[in-house]
Amino acid sequence: MKTRIGIYGYGNLGRGVENAIRQNEDMELVAVFTRRDPSALKIATPTAAVCAAADVDSYVDKIDVMILCGGSATDLPEQTPALAKLYNVVDSFDTHANIPTHFANVDAAAKGAGHVAMISVGWDPGMFSLNRLYAGAILPDGKDYTFWGKGVSQGHSDAIRRIEGVVDAKQYTIPVEAALDAVRSGSCPALTTREKHTRECFVVAAEGADTARIEREIKEMPNYFADYDTTVHFISLDELRRDHGGIPHGGFVIRTGKTGADLEHNHVIEYSLKLDSNPEFTASVIVAYARAAHRMSIEGTVGCKTVLDVPPAYLSPKSGEQLRAELL
Amino acid sequence: MKTRIGIYGYGNLGRGVENAIRQNEDMELVAVFTRRDPSALKIATPTAAVCAAADVDSYVDKIDVMILCGGSATDLPEQTPALAKLYNVVDSFDTHANIPTHFANVDAAAKGAGHVAMISVGWDPGMFSLNRLYAGAILPDGKDYTFWGKGVSQGHSDAIRRIEGVVDAKQYTIPVEAALDAVRSGSCPALTTREKHTRECFVVAAEGADTARIEREIKEMPNYFADYDTTVHFISLDELRRDHGGIPHGGFVIRTGKTGADLEHNHVIEYSLKLDSNPEFTASVIVAYARAAHRMSIEGTVGCKTVLDVPPAYLSPKSGEQLRAELL
Repeated sequence: MKTRIGIYGYGNLGRGVENAIRQNEDMELVAVFTRRDPSALKIATPTAAVCAAADVDSYVDKIDVMILCGGSATDLPEQTPALAKLYNVVDSFDTHANIPTHFANVDAAAKGAGHVAMISVGWDPGMFSLNRLYAGAILPDGKDYTFWGKGVSQGHSDAIRRIEGVVDAKQYTIPVEAALDAVRSGSCPALTTREKHTRECFVVAAEGADTARIEREIKEMPNYFADYDTTVHFISLDELRRDHGGIPHGGFVIRTGKTGADLEHNHVIEYSLKLDSNPEFTASVIVAYARAAHRMSIEGTVGCKTVLDVPPAYLSPKSGEQLRAELL
Repeated sequence: MKTRIGIYGYGNLGRGVENAIRQNEDMELVAVFTRRDPSALKIATPTAAVCAAADVDSYVDKIDVMILCGGSATDLPEQTPALAKLYNVVDSFDTHANIPTHFANVDAAAKGAGHVAMISVGWDPGMFSLNRLYAGAILPDGKDYTFWGKGVSQGHSDAIRRIEGVVDAKQYTIPVEAALDAVRSGSCPALTTREKHTRECFVVAAEGADTARIEREIKEMPNYFADYDTTVHFISLDELRRDHGGIPHGGFVIRTGKTGADLEHNHVIEYSLKLDSNPEFTASVIVAYARAAHRMSIEGTVGCKTVLDVPPAYLSPKSGEQLRAELL
């Protein structure tokens, strides 16, 4: 029996989910729901339907798990509770500070309807959260650190694009190697924002624009850049497209901690990701958790869940026997 | 309410468990069971009893989880099924090839008695298994690699000690840096045993022993050394004690995989451990899983479980609300 999937929202993440479904034989894409004109949307899966978002309730018997691919700012806070009334759902809500509120809203909707709703699935929140949890439970006397990058920050790139005279821009967040090494040493350093990450910007300026002013406006921008060592490179639009067209990302979760009668032994647990495509990797995590959501729903689980609640074996298409024999 | 723990077997691992319990306020050591004379055994926890292994059934109302700290070769195959009839249990059974049989034996005993039995807890099997599972579920089109070290292999050290003329020895397993780099590149290299790890031996020879013969016997030993590039250093007993007294270990689980419409994007997921004390880290993992075993038992779960079956949140003393707010 395949898990029948719907995709709600067809941007970078939605396309990534579609690709990921093709890599998993036990998953099947049934329909894509879009707020655009469905007849104008081409998707890559010939067997799947393209439907108007307004018709989302017409597939309740044909879809096991609906994957929500909208944004965390305005889409998901509305869509996830609404769709959890109709379907088992998975989203990638990533505004860390608002997770408790989102959880409560989604939990009420999912419980009322008898569905499983898996929120904040991806890599941070997601796989990074899991690694913070595991490492913290194993080494209670310790400290953990999260570093991001090297990778493209969409929010920071957007912030640069809003500056007058900027045609386009791409911003990379880069972890500071010396900070990583200090953390790995077990010295539990106190690190400032500036010491942990640098920011590198590739900017296309309009013809005749004052690049000195643009550079100053970037470097002095509060919250986004002022607390970081920032490098600005002005390049041509062709160079931007040729050399900075991807959406790579990644990062590190490192916990160091002590054990022993006198806490005399140090341990380092490190998890890292190096991703060519941020949305495709996030989509791949989501599809694995859609499998788990379907299984948990069949077992009678209801309500809002996160990656912290899911037994790892539920992510794999393999049986418990296979997993124990092949990879335990 | 604290989780009341018993320790069955008081070697390096048992002492590690005792230390780890002191680092977790919600855990309490009630009793240590030993096959030695209990009156001759000093433990570090003044409030805990020291009991004869034969009296293990006298604590069934006083212990929530019994942690088995014996060896995988002969102790655990007997002890885990036997004690699962009396208690919820956790063991660190690490003979990978025999896990399915051990699981079946323990599962029957635990189910018959209504207990939870968590087997093969530690880091490999254990945290490394989890990382193989997560990474494989996320990136189905990929390949994973496990490297061990740098660390002390007890089995290989013992094998050297059995050679005539050897007083004492310590063997380190060392991953080959070039192999790690090749794996991280995403090229999915086929690696021979020799290409993945080297072995370094520190040997104390008896006075007048033929060191050339000892070195040859080590390097030609089938299974243990013949398939590896092995280095042998002869040192004094004082040097061995001074410089090689610890039991460090660690390793790497790396999976690389592809996503995208044409599988054009590469991703690298890497998990690594660098441990000053192998038994203390293993003990720390076990204690976190003892917490989970207790919770699962309270909820009515019975039977044999592994790290692959446990919802991650059960490992932490924090509530779901706290975890979502603080680390998701």
